[in-house]
Amino acid sequence: MPLYQCLVPAGSLDAGHRAELAEAITGIHTSVTGAPRGFVNVVFTEYEPMSFFTAGKPNTVSVIGGKIRAGRDRASGAELLTRLSEAWTAITGQDRRSLLVGLDELDPTSIMEAGLIMPAPGEEAAWLERHRGALGELLSTE
Amino acid sequence: MPLYQCLVPAGSLDAGHRAELAEAITGIHTSVTGAPRGFVNVVFTEYEPMSFFTAGKPNTVSVIGGKIRAGRDRASGAELLTRLSEAWTAITGQDRRSLLVGLDELDPTSIMEAGLIMPAPGEEAAWLERHRGALGELLSTE
Amino acid sequence: MPLYQCLVPAGSLDAGHRAELAEAITGIHTSVTGAPRGFVNVVFTEYEPMSFFTAGKPNTVSVIGGKIRAGRDRASGAELLTRLSEAWTAITGQDRRSLLVGLDELDPTSIMEAGLIMPAPGEEAAWLERHRGALGELLSTE
Repeated sequence: MPLYQCLVPAGSLDAGHRAELAEAITGIHTSVTGAPRGFVNVVFTEYEPMSFFTAGKPNTVSVIGGKIRAGRDRASGAELLTRLSEAWTAITGQDRRSLLVGLDELDPTSIMEAGLIMPAPGEEAAWLERHRGALGELLSTE
Repeated sequence: MPLYQCLVPAGSLDAGHRAELAEAITGIHTSVTGAPRGFVNVVFTEYEPMSFFTAGKPNTVSVIGGKIRAGRDRASGAELLTRLSEAWTAITGQDRRSLLVGLDELDPTSIMEAGLIMPAPGEEAAWLERHRGALGELLSTE
Repeated sequence: MPLYQCLVPAGSLDAGHRAELAEAITGIHTSVTGAPRGFVNVVFTEYEPMSFFTAGKPNTVSVIGGKIRAGRDRASGAELLTRLSEAWTAITGQDRRSLLVGLDELDPTSIMEAGLIMPAPGEEAAWLERHRGALGELLSTE
């Protein structure tokens, strides 16, 4: 984690746009939260035409649903939301009114990555030390 | 937000049913919570045959997963659940035992819509005033 | 609930693997939490090639996203995560570094199943008694 699940209209993003958005989201998350790049996951799924509705009328909205570790402060959350929205609209050319972003906070101890359960807030340093070997490439900043 | 994500068996809902369900969900959410219609989003995605299991056996269940603002009281939640279930089964003719509904509460300040971060509980009036221009059609009750 | 949503690379799991995973997940959840089998739901959805990215690079990760009742203690959560990961890698032969597991806790009173709103913690016994008839097969341990 984090995992950013992007739900978009079918065919609205080609492979190049997906790669560019994944890179932007990864960079923004890393920059705002200090998390290693290797923990940042982004996935794109699609919905078919006439499957999204706003106010009961068909619409074509993209949704970024981020599942992130609980414990960020309000300013960090606001910076994440703002920069994610700016990057998305810049890369896709879509209007910001067609983008919905939500960050869902998960208790870190309810997350397992690469076979390791994430540490509770305050336990990170000891956890990193204990699992440095197993973490391997996850901790790379490349 | 809210965003109601409906995960259904592939081919189980035609365009007419989706539109009717979206209208019903929008009306119910608006009626129970007082939120403007323009904030209510509904999206339908599908799963393939033999992909849903209950008690380890193949099943065909529809799931309504609502992401709503935190802060509703228990009675409002119960009314939402009850009316969503009633509308779904009335429109689709499906049995209520084939429907799963869950409401997931998000911190409003972790949500961005139309480029605007949602206000914390208690800040709504000032927020609406400040962003009335930008909100535009979102606030329409049409 | 619970609902375990498994998001996997398109074509990575055949019907046999899905059934085997659903059975394993159901057994693990029941064993760790004591929930009746009839409440355990598992669904598989897919993402297309070049749609998942880790650290900004294409990757093929499977995600188990569990929506479970709030109120489990940390040890139960850890046991769930560990056994889910072990079962997934044993059945699929995939590396545990290609698996991401997250458990998202929902307020039980925000969940409706088979037309019934789930009880708050502490209200389970009275709730089961009141709805025994309606619950029917959900409570079967078969």
